[in-house]
Order: sequence, then structure tokens, then C-alpha cells
Amino acid sequence: MSKTNPGNYFEDFRIGQEIRHATPRTITSGDVALYTGLYGPRFAVQSSDVYAHRIGFKSAPVDDLLAFHMVFGKTVPDVSLNAVANLGYAGGVFGVPVYPGDTVSSVSTVTGLKQNSNGKTGVVYVNTVGRNQRGEMVLDYNRWVMVVKKDQSAPAPETVLPELPTVVSPEALQVPIGLDASDYDTELSGSPDLWDDYYVGEKIDHIDGMTLEEAEHQIATRLYQNTAKVHFDQVAASAGRFGKRLIYGGHVISLARALSFNGLGNAFKIAAINAGAHANPAFAGDTVFAWSEVLDKFELPGRRDLGALRLRLVAVRDRRESDFPLRTEDGKYHADVLLDFDYTVLIPR
Amino acid sequence: MSKTNPGNYFEDFRIGQEIRHATPRTITSGDVALYTGLYGPRFAVQSSDVYAHRIGFKSAPVDDLLAFHMVFGKTVPDVSLNAVANLGYAGGVFGVPVYPGDTVSSVSTVTGLKQNSNGKTGVVYVNTVGRNQRGEMVLDYNRWVMVVKKDQSAPAPETVLPELPTVVSPEALQVPIGLDASDYDTELSGSPDLWDDYYVGEKIDHIDGMTLEEAEHQIATRLYQNTAKVHFDQVAASAGRFGKRLIYGGHVISLARALSFNGLGNAFKIAAINAGAHANPAFAGDTVFAWSEVLDKFELPGRRDLGALRLRLVAVRDRRESDFPLRTEDGKYHADVLLDFDYTVLIPR
Amino acid sequence: MSKTNPGNYFEDFRIGQEIRHATPRTITSGDVALYTGLYGPRFAVQSSDVYAHRIGFKSAPVDDLLAFHMVFGKTVPDVSLNAVANLGYAGGVFGVPVYPGDTVSSVSTVTGLKQNSNGKTGVVYVNTVGRNQRGEMVLDYNRWVMVVKKDQSAPAPETVLPELPTVVSPEALQVPIGLDASDYDTELSGSPDLWDDYYVGEKIDHIDGMTLEEAEHQIATRLYQNTAKVHFDQVAASAGRFGKRLIYGGHVISLARALSFNGLGNAFKIAAINAGAHANPAFAGDTVFAWSEVLDKFELPGRRDLGALRLRLVAVRDRRESDFPLRTEDGKYHADVLLDFDYTVLIPR
Repeated sequence: MSKTNPGNYFEDFRIGQEIRHATPRTITSGDVALYTGLYGPRFAVQSSDVYAHRIGFKSAPVDDLLAFHMVFGKTVPDVSLNAVANLGYAGGVFGVPVYPGDTVSSVSTVTGLKQNSNGKTGVVYVNTVGRNQRGEMVLDYNRWVMVVKKDQSAPAPETVLPELPTVVSPEALQVPIGLDASDYDTELSGSPDLWDDYYVGEKIDHIDGMTLEEAEHQIATRLYQNTAKVHFDQVAASAGRFGKRLIYGGHVISLARALSFNGLGNAFKIAAINAGAHANPAFAGDTVFAWSEVLDKFELPGRRDLGALRLRLVAVRDRRESDFPLRTEDGKYHADVLLDFDYTVLIPR
Repeated sequence: MSKTNPGNYFEDFRIGQEIRHATPRTITSGDVALYTGLYGPRFAVQSSDVYAHRIGFKSAPVDDLLAFHMVFGKTVPDVSLNAVANLGYAGGVFGVPVYPGDTVSSVSTVTGLKQNSNGKTGVVYVNTVGRNQRGEMVLDYNRWVMVVKKDQSAPAPETVLPELPTVVSPEALQVPIGLDASDYDTELSGSPDLWDDYYVGEKIDHIDGMTLEEAEHQIATRLYQNTAKVHFDQVAASAGRFGKRLIYGGHVISLARALSFNGLGNAFKIAAINAGAHANPAFAGDTVFAWSEVLDKFELPGRRDLGALRLRLVAVRDRRESDFPLRTEDGKYHADVLLDFDYTVLIPR
Repeated sequence: MSKTNPGNYFEDFRIGQEIRHATPRTITSGDVALYTGLYGPRFAVQSSDVYAHRIGFKSAPVDDLLAFHMVFGKTVPDVSLNAVANLGYAGGVFGVPVYPGDTVSSVSTVTGLKQNSNGKTGVVYVNTVGRNQRGEMVLDYNRWVMVVKKDQSAPAPETVLPELPTVVSPEALQVPIGLDASDYDTELSGSPDLWDDYYVGEKIDHIDGMTLEEAEHQIATRLYQNTAKVHFDQVAASAGRFGKRLIYGGHVISLARALSFNGLGNAFKIAAINAGAHANPAFAGDTVFAWSEVLDKFELPGRRDLGALRLRLVAVRDRRESDFPLRTEDGKYHADVLLDFDYTVLIPR
């Protein structure tokens, strides 16, 4: 019998099935350095132990998206090796901060199954929880993917759809214990704009563009130990639909988030991922631009130092004009839109 | 007189000569992160301090091949700056594990010399030992290279050929002190297959492919402080035989080893390098695939938790079919074979 | 009002203005690893904790140019976002060594202003001081850039030109406290040549060449959190004068410095930057070679273990001949010269 991992096919998943994913990972300052080199984030809290300590962190925490990619990467061999589409995210909550030296593991539970009418594929919903070496939750999120069936004659499972929130409610957000932003320094953070300066409906063009390179996304995706074949193998890609290696969608999220510093320089902490769509595939040679929209503002119960912003972060390919492209008249994503990401940040007031 | 390093020519080597190589190196978690980003290894022992500690390591040890490249890289300015071919490896034994923070140095002894009949080149055999800051051996291996003569009228030295083993015997393998794999977790390691599940003669197609990029191999080779000019200088390469920069052979070893995780996910520790040939040069743009053959199985004296497998690891260029290419009918390596590497791993039983 | 950083225009600067730059940065062993991978420096002091400790450092200090890039990078959003030319450096002095774990911040003071006769641009002189978390100076240097005016009708400021030294005097050089090179090991350092072996007027061809890749300079420049747009955005570059992304000048300095190891292997510590010109822009695909000239030799007051060399380091594109190109007959830089860098090193005697 083959010793290589075949991954799971649609008929292999069962409601309630728990998958303890392989390769626990100690995240180090080396991972952080590489993350900085790959995207160029400039949030002071994640860049400086001194700055982070001053507002209550033990030291500079790891970028929330680096933690996300590490937790996510582990799920690929079990959940999405035979996926044909990454359909969505919901109800993502970040827990305790991850610090260099922490070891992160992931466990997923199958929460929904729905075979497609063509009988060839089905949608699998998983809830994934990443924990540190003390068992503390660092990230809890839901994801659903379309997975192929290996045996098309396998019977369709009973359809079960999980109840997923369209937005993580302010009450569910976790503010790191000890965090006190009342002494937050906006000169060193690089932006004067705080929670009160943003309004619902505001759109921000983040201006800067970055061109994607093959070596960069490959290094990133391997760093996350994400094994999806489409990102690495040009021989397979040349025989495929696009003729090119596809860039891991998370690479685009991180790049857009780093670009969003220019306009959201104090939104240093991602508290929730509400939803996300990889609208179009990205390829090496694309130049990524980003814009944001303030979807909502939340006060945080009992806090005067911090508020939350619900943001839409859109990554766009090869367009410098600030016309905030998203969808065309027929409701489909514009062909140049790569990412439509709905998330919630903590930002000092 | 020139202050740049001319390297050693064939006539500069003497039997018994000991070379204390320059640039001792402290290996850090930064080097480990970059190594992960460059190849994507997924062995749990090297990825997680917690996992490694549970089976007796102090913390996650550095990938054995990262240690190899660091020890090897130091020898290049003295041994192979004027080499025209890297002919072989033998009798490589890994000693104590390398941990982030350890400082590694290399010393080589010339053990063999044989001038070629053309009078222009000769073969130099060296034994190289890498040690940590406590003087403990981390790697002891033999290598032979063909080196040019600068002065073709220099007299040929007496031919001396060292006795080299064709395989490192099981008795010579060093199991890290304290390692106890009886509590090894195959769920977190990502593979159910242990020593008993492999049989001699078994071939494993590792399936996945990775395309090589110039930036990647250059970053890797510089990380190892390997100064061989052929990897970096496109001006010289354009005037040369291939027209392209050659990729450091060790880069292909590491990539093939990382690919071999898919099928050998519990073979977490390289104990020996028995032999190795860089069958054909690799270039950016090549997509590397790998397959393995189980050449032998060894029990380890007095141990029920671990066994050893002698493996052939073959890296192949741009071929996705699992036809296990190696040599053509005339006994030469197939033109698409990049690496034929014979090594021994420790794997839980 | 826009929330993105517009940068400062010429008319925004005032003599005596102090700018506390954003994004303090904790420099880690991860940053060091990436620096090694990007340039391949081989100085033993920066490579080995053991070697560095033996001559009086706490552990291996960070490469001086890595510290430079980190201090410099922070100034870009405030000083040179609207710059059209990086005109020069002067009076750069390195202070206490930077070790992994140190947090570096930058403050600049405007020391000179001179509007150009065209009324569209002006020259801004800044003195920048980088300090560690204890407030100790790690780098103090002057830089002047040509910056555009946003409002061309804004009145010209009074012209003020700072007095800047053409060379940092030996008395102003800072030798790290505790450094004692009397026990310096030239075998492990990789070069036998010490201070006494160099003579004023000596030229050294560093021989080796390295070809620049887009992924490499982008990763480097993001690592330094340098946000200059010209390095990253191919869409903008395609519409510009060169059609290509420009490589951060500091990337070329670091590459040339690493190449200079071959000929200056004991010049392990940069003590001063006297002057520097980015003679021509560098692009991906260029192969960089380097040569040095010994401009001066200084004894250091009261020390027999160390001396100083004032060096010119020249980076050249795509030329392998050791003809030491610099300027053409009309006094302009040769079109293939990328860098003319005047700096002072400490080197054991």
C-alpha cells in the first residue's frame, strides 16, 4: 500500500470527526524575521519588544497572520489536499498572543457536509482550533472547501450545515490579558489616526504596490509547511488551466495587510476574521495594491483605551487608481480583485 | 602579493595535511527558519521543541542536512575552490545533535591523492570533521574532488587512496544520548509507517514536485557561507559550458529530502551518509521530484524503539511519472537524474 | 483627510526640526540569518558567538550594515518618501555594537536646507542617530537628499548648510569597550593579512561576482522596513524612466561589503562611513563585482592590537576584469559603477 499521503476525499469525512493535524511547530524569531522580509509589516507592537512591553505584552507578539498561516498550514494535508476550491472563512477568533518560542498545534472537527448535485464533489466544513504548548487557544476559525470524491459511487452523506456567524460579535473578541493602550505612542507607531478618527463607510486607498515573485511565495508557503501542490510544481502547472503556479491565498492576505499599514498604522491587532474570499488567483508578476473600507465600529465593553473596527480589506492586481474596485455590475468580483477579506481589528482610542 | 584567496591547487595538498577551516558559525533559530522556508521539511522532531523534548531531545534539533551544509560550506575555500568535479562522499556519520545556539567548526585532513594521467588534474580525498563549541563531533565524513593543477610541471605525488567504507555499518551509527522513541506519536508526526512497515527493495515515489528559483538557491548557498563561484555569477556562467548558474548540489539533497517526507515521514534522523553522486547539474527552472528505495534494514543493538533504514534517495528533474528513473542501459545516469544519494536514517519501530 | 502618509515635502522641513521616526525594531538572530542568506558575509566575529566572545564581545554582534539599514529604513517615511535623489552621506560613526535582542530606534534632526534654483526641489540635510533600548548610540550619520516641493509657490527657506567632515577623524572612531584583538585567530578568520600588510594606495580586486534577483532585494528592503516605493512596484516602474524596479542602494553596499571579505577578511568592524555615492542605479539581473582601494591608514591612540583603514569600496556591474573602473575622463562615474563608498574599518595588527 502506498506510504504517501493520499489526503482525504469527500467520502472520507464524517460529521463530528476530529483530526489532530501533524507537525506541531515551534514559532521562532527566525520565522518572524522571514515574515517581515516577505511582506514588510511595520506595526510597532510586532516590531519592538520594548514597545510591546510598554503596553502590556510580554514581548513583541508574532504577527497574527503568521500564527494564522501556521495553524492553517497544518490542516492542508488532511483537509484540502484534494480540494478544488477554498470557499470561505467564518467565525475566526484570535486568542492568546503567540510569542517566539511557543509551539502551536492544530485540531479540526468536521462540522458540515454537503454533496454537490453533480455527485463528483462536496463541501466540507471544518472548525479548526490552534493551541499553544499550554493548551491555550491562539486561533479558532471555520473554513469550508470543495473536495472531490474519489469513488463517485460512494453514497452521499446526510447534508449538515453548521451555523456560522456572518460577523464575530464584539463580545466574542478576546483582548490580550494585560494589554493597556492608554499609554500608546502614536509617534513611534507611525500614524496619528486612532479609533475615533475612522467612520463607518470610510474607504482608504493604501496606495503602495508590491510585485509578487515566485521565490517569495514559495518560501512563504514552505515556511508555513503548507503542502498544497499547486504552489510549487511548474510541471503540473504547465499542464493545468492557468499554466502558472498559483500563489497561496494567505500570501496575498499578508501582503495586503502589510500594505494596509499605510492608512491603518494603529490597527495593530487582528481580533477576528469574519469572512474571506479569494476572488481570483494570484500569480508571480502580479503587482498587489490594497484598499480598505470601514464596515463597522465597536466599542469594547468596559474599555476606554481600545476600540474595534470591522474592516473590509481588498487586494487588487495591477491597478494604481484609487477607484476601489470590488464587483462588476453582475455582482461578480472584478477580474482584478484577488481578495475580499472581512476582519476585525483592535485599535487604540 | 594578492590578498584574495587563490584556494588550493592539486599540487598544494599533502597527505596528512590538516586544514582548520575559517568562519566558525553559530547556528541559530534564524538559520532554521530560513531552511524551513527554502525546502519545507515537515519532520515533527525538527519542527517542535515540545515534540522533540518528549522523546529525549533538549529541544528541536537542527535538521541534519543544515548541519551538513554548514560543515561542508567551510571546506569550500580550502578544498574545492579550484575543483572541477565533486566526485563522491563516503563514511559520513552524524554525531551529537546540533541545537540553535551551537557553534560549529570544521577541520579537514587530506587522506588521499591521485594525479590523473593527463597531468592537469588530480583527485584529493579529505576527511572532514565538524565539531560544536564543546569539541563534540557533529559530523565526520569523507569527500573526494577533482582539483586542477596550477603548475602542470609540478611533480605528481605518490598515489595514496584511503580505505573508505561502501556503507556505514550499523555499529558505527550514533543514536543521540537520551533519545527514546517508545512514546513516539505517529499522529503528530504525520505518518503511520514505522521501521517494520518498510521492506528491502521497496520503492517509494514521493509524488510532489518543487520548481527551483535562482533567488532560493543563492540565498541557501550564501546561508551556508559556501563560496563556490559557479552558483552566483551569471557573467561567468554566460561564458561557460551551461550558460546558467549551477545550483549547489546540497540544495538538491535538501529539497529531495524534504520531498521524501511524503512516504518517509518518520525517518526523522539522518544517521549516516554512505555515498552520494550529483548525477547531473541542476538549474533554476528545473522542477525537482524524488523517489526512494529501501536498500537495507538494520536492527540497532539493544534497542526496541528504533531501527535503521539504508535508503537511496534519487532526485529527478521535470518528470512526474513514477517510473523510478536512475540509469540508462549503458550504466550511465539518466539525463534527468540529479542526485543519487545513499544514506541511513533512524526511524521508530 | 487622507490617512495615508504623504511624507514630507521640501517646504515641510525646518532647520532644527527633530523627527522621532516610527517603528522601533528589535533586531533578532532571525534578521541576522536572513542577512547572511542575502549577502553571504563571512567575517568570523559576526558569524560565531565563540569567536566574538574570545576577543571581548558579549556574543556575535550584528553586522554593522544590518544595523545601518535598520536605522536608515526608519527615516524613509519621514525624510525621503518624496526624494528624487539620495545625494550623499558624511560623518557616520558606529557606536556600541548591536546584539540580537537589542531594540533600535532612530531620531533625525534637520541640519541644512537649500532650495534649488528651479524652485521645484531642494536639498535637505539630516543628522540621524540610532539608539538601542538603553539609549546608547549605535549609529550617528548625516545624509542629504533632494526632495520635491509640493507647493512650488512656497517661499524658499534661508539656505543653511551644515559643516560636515570629509572624513571621520581617527579620534572620533569608537572601539567597542572590551574589544581586545591581541588573541585574534587569523586561521579561523580566513585571512592572514592584518593592518600592517596593507599600504595606502593599494587596490584589491575582490574577484567574485553575484547576480542580483528581484526576490532578494525585495526581501532585504522589506526586512529593513524601508518603504521607498521604487523598489517594489513594477506597475509604477513600467511607467517610469528605467522600466524596472530600482534596487535599494544599501543592498548594493551590503553585497559589495560581503564580496570584499575576499581580500579584506580581517576588516571585521566598520567604524565609520565617511562618504558614499550611489553612482548608478542597480537592477535585477546585474552581476555585482567589487574592488577596494586603501585610502589611508590610522594608528589608534594607545592600541597595539588594532588599527584602522580608510577604504574606498567600489561596486561595479557586469565586469570581471580587474581594471578598477571608477570615473571616465570627464570626471563622471563610469556607467557600470554602482557604488563609491568611503568608509573606515577596524582591523587587527
